Amino acid sequence: MRISFCCTDTKAQPWLDGLRAAFPDAEVEVWSDGARPADYAVVWAPPQSFLDEQAGLKGIFNIGAGVDALLKLRLPPGVPVVRLDDAGMSVQMAEYVCHAVIRHFREFDGYEADAAEGRWSYRKPRLRADFPVGVMGLGVLGERVSRALAQFDFPVRGWSRSAKTIPGVQCFSGEAGFNDFLAASRILVCLLPLTPDTDNIMRQDTLARLQPGGYVINVARGSHLVDDDLIALLGSGHLAGATLDVFRTEPLPPAHPFWKHPKITVTPHTSARTLRDESIAQIAGKIRALESGALIASLAGVVDPNKGY
Amino acid sequence: MRISFCCTDTKAQPWLDGLRAAFPDAEVEVWSDGARPADYAVVWAPPQSFLDEQAGLKGIFNIGAGVDALLKLRLPPGVPVVRLDDAGMSVQMAEYVCHAVIRHFREFDGYEADAAEGRWSYRKPRLRADFPVGVMGLGVLGERVSRALAQFDFPVRGWSRSAKTIPGVQCFSGEAGFNDFLAASRILVCLLPLTPDTDNIMRQDTLARLQPGGYVINVARGSHLVDDDLIALLGSGHLAGATLDVFRTEPLPPAHPFWKHPKITVTPHTSARTLRDESIAQIAGKIRALESGALIASLAGVVDPNKGY
Repeated sequence: MRISFCCTDTKAQPWLDGLRAAFPDAEVEVWSDGARPADYAVVWAPPQSFLDEQAGLKGIFNIGAGVDALLKLRLPPGVPVVRLDDAGMSVQMAEYVCHAVIRHFREFDGYEADAAEGRWSYRKPRLRADFPVGVMGLGVLGERVSRALAQFDFPVRGWSRSAKTIPGVQCFSGEAGFNDFLAASRILVCLLPLTPDTDNIMRQDTLARLQPGGYVINVARGSHLVDDDLIALLGSGHLAGATLDVFRTEPLPPAHPFWKHPKITVTPHTSARTLRDESIAQIAGKIRALESGALIASLAGVVDPNKGY
Repeated sequence: MRISFCCTDTKAQPWLDGLRAAFPDAEVEVWSDGARPADYAVVWAPPQSFLDEQAGLKGIFNIGAGVDALLKLRLPPGVPVVRLDDAGMSVQMAEYVCHAVIRHFREFDGYEADAAEGRWSYRKPRLRADFPVGVMGLGVLGERVSRALAQFDFPVRGWSRSAKTIPGVQCFSGEAGFNDFLAASRILVCLLPLTPDTDNIMRQDTLARLQPGGYVINVARGSHLVDDDLIALLGSGHLAGATLDVFRTEPLPPAHPFWKHPKITVTPHTSARTLRDESIAQIAGKIRALESGALIASLAGVVDPNKGY
């Protein structure tokens, strides 16, 4: 068996070591132009030439949950694409989002500013009922985030393409349910896959439907959000703030207004990092299953290119 | 029935309104010297003279979870003391502690400092297994906090006077289990009642037993912590930081070194505020139960003055 590793922005050696340890009899190599055909590929943002050359793959494993960048390429026909399915990411997302929601709801930023000036000052406790949280996208990550938020007794709404049921979460679905979902939410969390349908989904007319004093948390993709519309709604006061982990251009360019905006918290795409050991174990398990004759459809995380996730 | 309200640092009118609404036929008054004897008292830090005069009470309801200040007074013999039992406080504690633990573990302070300088910089993800969290005190608040932390997959240890069992939490108890508990913890959360046994419980020799790079979160009482010992252990590097909500003197005096210490986050005793409506509902429910002949021992939150909580 031959496994080709083709990941930009990723230190290769620890992945090669891990995959070789998982498959001592396999050839595991970093791809280079003209390399021999492989059986499986482990990829992150591969060049088009890799996909053109490696047309005989039995599976392409994406070392992230989002495959929007990969699906922009011309994929070899009939080769299944498998994305990471949790692999330690959902708990990180739950942490990141709960931290941001609690920090906003409890005004810990304000308390910290007071403390920096040596000021002991109470703020009137806010009512949890006034801060319903809406989670867009109810896959593995969105569901875990929703459940974590519900544990803190926030009213939680969820929205997904197809109808879902999650205990403790008021679920909406489809285009028909979108406006009601927005109107029932004050804090909006984006965990959607990026597809033509979800591109620019957070824009003036949608964000304006959030309850007054709304708050935006984007942990999906930068293109879900229209940057200027967010800034305008923060300026008008309809939105109270935002915590953003993803951007249209990453790293976020130095001159971008998000950096210095007093109501925006910026983090460098760190909400849920790919954890190497967990990811290698998951990919190795899936390769073993396929080698033992499992059907591709039986694996978690198989991408439907028509849906885009 | 007569209910006397005797709470310092508390706006009386909304409490009077709430109690009167709950008991339209009762006399509900703010206590003043020489007032007629009441059946029940609702108190926070009452003067000794109140307790001396009101010797015939059927119950004293403390509008907080901690009764250390009340128990320092000379209580009328045989009058039961009942403290708040959750009443919206446990979810606030879970929020406060989870926010502090996640913020430290995920280095969000550091990311924020980077962002303030326009710096897009990754930090190596830390392993959750390296950050076991120890919760001292497993009452209503401590148990909820422990469960909330376990939901984020942190290894959680608990310590209490008498042995407890909480799913997902490694529980230690009594003096015999204390050192093992400390050695098994890196982040230490104090949710103990303040009693002669727990006074100064976080001091040089106990904090030194925490795992290197330890972190202290105090949401109980200022006297649980020896201030200078914390500062010394932060200086030596054994401790990495602290989030403190409670202090020996409150408000924290302007000259206190905690205010400006770069590794200490100070909040003004706001981790779990008494929520008036929930508290009134709880106290009213307990008064009704007693008036219908319930035994005092059947109520949640009845204080054992010998234990001190």
